[in-house]
Amino acid sequence: MIAGIIGATGYAGAELVRLLSGHPKIEKLILSSVSFEGERIEDVYPSFLGRISGPLLKADDVISASGMKVVFAALPHAVGEPFAAACSEKGIHYIDLSADFRFDDDEETYSAWYGKTYKFPQLHKTSVYGLPELNRKLLKEKAAEGAVMIGNPGCYPTGASLGVFPALCGKMISDNAPVIVDAVSGVSGGGREPSRSFHYSECADSVAPYKIASHRHSPEIARNLNVMAERAGVPAMRVIFTPHLAPMNRGILSTIYIPLSEKYRVTRKVSSGSVMPAGKEIEEKTREIREIYAKFYKNEPFVRVLPEGVFASTNRVRQSNFCDISVSVDINGSMLIIASAIDNMVKGAAGQAVQNMNIIFNFDETSGLEAIPMLF
Amino acid sequence: MIAGIIGATGYAGAELVRLLSGHPKIEKLILSSVSFEGERIEDVYPSFLGRISGPLLKADDVISASGMKVVFAALPHAVGEPFAAACSEKGIHYIDLSADFRFDDDEETYSAWYGKTYKFPQLHKTSVYGLPELNRKLLKEKAAEGAVMIGNPGCYPTGASLGVFPALCGKMISDNAPVIVDAVSGVSGGGREPSRSFHYSECADSVAPYKIASHRHSPEIARNLNVMAERAGVPAMRVIFTPHLAPMNRGILSTIYIPLSEKYRVTRKVSSGSVMPAGKEIEEKTREIREIYAKFYKNEPFVRVLPEGVFASTNRVRQSNFCDISVSVDINGSMLIIASAIDNMVKGAAGQAVQNMNIIFNFDETSGLEAIPMLF
Amino acid sequence: MIAGIIGATGYAGAELVRLLSGHPKIEKLILSSVSFEGERIEDVYPSFLGRISGPLLKADDVISASGMKVVFAALPHAVGEPFAAACSEKGIHYIDLSADFRFDDDEETYSAWYGKTYKFPQLHKTSVYGLPELNRKLLKEKAAEGAVMIGNPGCYPTGASLGVFPALCGKMISDNAPVIVDAVSGVSGGGREPSRSFHYSECADSVAPYKIASHRHSPEIARNLNVMAERAGVPAMRVIFTPHLAPMNRGILSTIYIPLSEKYRVTRKVSSGSVMPAGKEIEEKTREIREIYAKFYKNEPFVRVLPEGVFASTNRVRQSNFCDISVSVDINGSMLIIASAIDNMVKGAAGQAVQNMNIIFNFDETSGLEAIPMLF
Amino acid sequence: MIAGIIGATGYAGAELVRLLSGHPKIEKLILSSVSFEGERIEDVYPSFLGRISGPLLKADDVISASGMKVVFAALPHAVGEPFAAACSEKGIHYIDLSADFRFDDDEETYSAWYGKTYKFPQLHKTSVYGLPELNRKLLKEKAAEGAVMIGNPGCYPTGASLGVFPALCGKMISDNAPVIVDAVSGVSGGGREPSRSFHYSECADSVAPYKIASHRHSPEIARNLNVMAERAGVPAMRVIFTPHLAPMNRGILSTIYIPLSEKYRVTRKVSSGSVMPAGKEIEEKTREIREIYAKFYKNEPFVRVLPEGVFASTNRVRQSNFCDISVSVDINGSMLIIASAIDNMVKGAAGQAVQNMNIIFNFDETSGLEAIPMLF
Repeated sequence: MIAGIIGATGYAGAELVRLLSGHPKIEKLILSSVSFEGERIEDVYPSFLGRISGPLLKADDVISASGMKVVFAALPHAVGEPFAAACSEKGIHYIDLSADFRFDDDEETYSAWYGKTYKFPQLHKTSVYGLPELNRKLLKEKAAEGAVMIGNPGCYPTGASLGVFPALCGKMISDNAPVIVDAVSGVSGGGREPSRSFHYSECADSVAPYKIASHRHSPEIARNLNVMAERAGVPAMRVIFTPHLAPMNRGILSTIYIPLSEKYRVTRKVSSGSVMPAGKEIEEKTREIREIYAKFYKNEPFVRVLPEGVFASTNRVRQSNFCDISVSVDINGSMLIIASAIDNMVKGAAGQAVQNMNIIFNFDETSGLEAIPMLF
Repeated sequence: MIAGIIGATGYAGAELVRLLSGHPKIEKLILSSVSFEGERIEDVYPSFLGRISGPLLKADDVISASGMKVVFAALPHAVGEPFAAACSEKGIHYIDLSADFRFDDDEETYSAWYGKTYKFPQLHKTSVYGLPELNRKLLKEKAAEGAVMIGNPGCYPTGASLGVFPALCGKMISDNAPVIVDAVSGVSGGGREPSRSFHYSECADSVAPYKIASHRHSPEIARNLNVMAERAGVPAMRVIFTPHLAPMNRGILSTIYIPLSEKYRVTRKVSSGSVMPAGKEIEEKTREIREIYAKFYKNEPFVRVLPEGVFASTNRVRQSNFCDISVSVDINGSMLIIASAIDNMVKGAAGQAVQNMNIIFNFDETSGLEAIPMLF
Repeated sequence: MIAGIIGATGYAGAELVRLLSGHPKIEKLILSSVSFEGERIEDVYPSFLGRISGPLLKADDVISASGMKVVFAALPHAVGEPFAAACSEKGIHYIDLSADFRFDDDEETYSAWYGKTYKFPQLHKTSVYGLPELNRKLLKEKAAEGAVMIGNPGCYPTGASLGVFPALCGKMISDNAPVIVDAVSGVSGGGREPSRSFHYSECADSVAPYKIASHRHSPEIARNLNVMAERAGVPAMRVIFTPHLAPMNRGILSTIYIPLSEKYRVTRKVSSGSVMPAGKEIEEKTREIREIYAKFYKNEPFVRVLPEGVFASTNRVRQSNFCDISVSVDINGSMLIIASAIDNMVKGAAGQAVQNMNIIFNFDETSGLEAIPMLF
Repeated sequence: MIAGIIGATGYAGAELVRLLSGHPKIEKLILSSVSFEGERIEDVYPSFLGRISGPLLKADDVISASGMKVVFAALPHAVGEPFAAACSEKGIHYIDLSADFRFDDDEETYSAWYGKTYKFPQLHKTSVYGLPELNRKLLKEKAAEGAVMIGNPGCYPTGASLGVFPALCGKMISDNAPVIVDAVSGVSGGGREPSRSFHYSECADSVAPYKIASHRHSPEIARNLNVMAERAGVPAMRVIFTPHLAPMNRGILSTIYIPLSEKYRVTRKVSSGSVMPAGKEIEEKTREIREIYAKFYKNEPFVRVLPEGVFASTNRVRQSNFCDISVSVDINGSMLIIASAIDNMVKGAAGQAVQNMNIIFNFDETSGLEAIPMLF
């Protein structure tokens, strides 16, 4: 099969090149780049030397290449719609790694956060948000009808949503309090373009939050949870999301605080004001919830609910498409604490895009994504 | 003045050596070490060559040194009490960096978390928890009466407590929900002893939580907040604390989620289910609360409430005794999000111990602690 | 095919597990571990969860497993000989990642550096040093005769030898001066066992040499060069080797200073004492030598001689079996400066062991080793 | 005393602000910045909040400030000469951290490497290269006569020169072979301006050489050694210099290979071709040379010749003005291997500039530079 990548030289695009070039069903990759048009991908990324080689064309050349079946777009927000429209017209599947197709027809939210309007509103009426654990069925249905426009999820929303879904569907969440997603990202999430924030000396050996109460992934996380809430027949919920930057190349660790509903809350017998170590009742409740999580994801090829005593850690999913989830209950017995870890460039971007391709083409969902996480 | 350090070769002890050797009031430092007794401090830490030099004696030799005025103990938990007793008897001030004197006479909590009992219970009746921003007055009062036993605070409790105090005293916190402290520490917090968790290849390029719902700093944070709550005449509160490890040498970043009381909550006019960027009303409330925080700490020499647009970042306090605090309100308008940053080895350990010494001896409180944070 | 790994839980062993489990010819892996006998590999390395699973047995159970064809030993030095003997007896190929079989029958050198004697001297008479670029032919010949004992090369010697071979065979090296190998390793080279040297806080954010003039890889590098020198009919040479530790997980960067023979030296026309930028004559000589290097390695699947303007960098070979080589000539015109980069755990250990297996079994030499280096 | 800093917001400039603001003789600092003119230094570097505060003016305002005694210029190369001329005219000492005054009147070399000509040639006739260990006496003499123009040394040349001087003056260096300086720098050496090379994801977790045979510090190192050679009455020498980038914030580690002259060479009694561990004769020669080094620097306040068994390491000089030197002799007995470590921003830039100021004003040479290296 022939696939194309528009914007192949940014980090997400290059990671797509790496993953797709090892995909058993992809015979040919056609690449484009605005910044490096006319050069070759292995000149821009010498890591590829001897393994991957190919010219960097114009975006239009990718779309019009003979036999093109699916185009991945790894572009800045709000520039890819015309390419989506062209693909749609030609019956080519389009998997967009920007935010442009993540909000379906909710242009109001998209505009409020991204400052742009939809140029091809009809495309957004039929597009699908490509989080397989949420929309696998819908992806397959739409693909059966023709070319699909897929809005590939943001990195933070992926880790956050997967961490909350089982609690939500299991009606574990208290109505009254917000879910808090406190997340830490590696620096590759900032992309390949140099800037002060991602300058080595400014971010090495340091951890800091950024864009508190103003990060664009806030509405996307909320949307995912509310879509799932509606399906599960539970009330919509508020989400509070805080991103941080840590000195690592890859990975997102989300620590998620979920206020437990009455049914799941543990009432501890400790004297008021006293803070005592978690005892048997907390351990048992944790085990019970962990089992619900494990059951929820038992057929998911890329979600690993971790065994007792193992916390999610970004280095254990590095370069893989896994989302690792660990389950804890606070010593107060009132809060579920989920930690989820993904590789922001794989499950958080390029790997998930490949997974979406596998789904719409009815390939084995793990094709090209079998990499074992690096050990160290 | 002559000062002593018991346990001078661990990280906190060595940092004390570094700070005290530059202190204008300290004429002589006497050091002990169990692991390196008989060697010299500059052999163990060649960084000291040409600047600091001194033999490593027995703990008893430190206490019995002629003219000894204050002894710092940087020992593992539950081994230092006999030294505290000896100092008490001789009228020597004792500043303990372990957890042994952090719980006053609440032996039940100490035992539950540290698995030990008090050997000299009477010492804990008069000891003072050495968080200057909480107990400066008490420290001075006790010092006026004679030798003080000071329980120097834990690293996480310092950053967490300072982040919450103004909200608490300002009655900003809702009664019903817990305060959440999500904190990230650098690896030096694990001490100098090699172990798998702090082995370079295991923790580099990775972020992960640890000891969720079981970290010993949970009861200490709760205690600090409840002591302050009692003074402020507000109800006791629940705290949920989750520590993480990040690949940096020093620093603790605490992101603190404080549910706002009705008075401080912002009711936003957005359509239900919709998530819109923070507007003017959020910005104004943030500014109002930031001013309250700034006012609360206006006389504190080491707490910096950061200006608008600047978030707390561990690299901006590196090697200094500062605690930086940034104030945000979530887009929902219901949650205050405080980020606090300290150097875990300075304000979180050795620097705070020196600050305590300055207080009880009526030295200028910033003596020996004027270091400007490293820039990069 | 069935393969076994003795010592599967150290870093090199676990990396072997990772690589072999993705190898198309390996149907079954049998593992042993002294430290974790009775546990499972995925308990020790949770990264493996959902991908690799298997019990950790005794070494003897690995060797005596039915159908066992090849055993990899990733053990400390001087403990594996009895396993080698057992394999030899059973006709099982044995690939040893320790230093025990790297010196053939030169027990004197081995003993001088490793402090041990050979317990099964006859095994060392027929063993082969497994650097494919040096001994591919010999490996195949021996394998045709029966079970082979392979001494898998050390990490530093691999990068150093590959960097020097073309210069040596091309008679580019001056007789009189030593070749200098200045190398920098990532911390995983120190193994999984915690120690002060590899404690995060001791090695992060710092570079330092270690074991100058006393590292055990010195005689191995010298040996490789002299074996090749003898084959090429050039005089033996002296080598000076200095290892350094840098704060990275993986990788070895060797900067190699090779005094050029008269034929290759460039005589520059600059006034005496003056230091001028490299001009055309230096550039041309560099190009000429680069072409010789490229030609030398043109059939090697894992050596990449980098194009003009690209210097070897450890992050471009990360997790791959590549050895990248860049060629420069100093502005003086008298010294060839080669930089070579490998992943110390892949081409420097486990990957090279797999490559050796591929060779002796006549598999495609790149089987299981097609990984594209991580991009960032 | 009043001092000024032109270019106060680059890394070297800001480090100067940090150091000078703690200097006991500096009463007032006047700052300028082109990029941030009109803002305040603490807005650009929030680390300074509560410690250092001041407006960022124009360069001319710094020079013309009433009572100005010394101006530090931390500007890009080839833009500061007019400021130097203005200072010269007003009798203000001028300490230039760029390369503009490092080559005295050797405009040919400066032009060849920096692509610029001197606009005020007469200034370069009387300027002094500010390496105190080389030119302390000259600095004092010139200062006695009037305002001095000081060319503050480059970072690499400082570490390299200090590592070679004692061998050179001790006539330990063989005439025939070049001295090789293989150096590794932290990323702050690249300055504050974002670029691909210093983008976190491109340089984290990786080591690589750069600008082999083309780095501008090559002629500066050669010049320093030849100036010293002339004074010592030994022949000029060739130097080969290779810089590398390592993932650390600060520090330069130079590993220097010095071919020993016949007098210092050790002839070992090992059979030809054999490589044996260093024995007693190597150890004794090392000790002898270490003592010569120690004696050479015994009056230098910032050079530490390390004791036996301790190698230079960048983390042991971090944030201090020290240059640490370790002495080794290779097992061949023919090569001296010196490792020198400096903090590239302190002894390699701002600290050395302050040291130069101390010298010309007859202040205690360590004033403002007493910082003890950070321990971890």
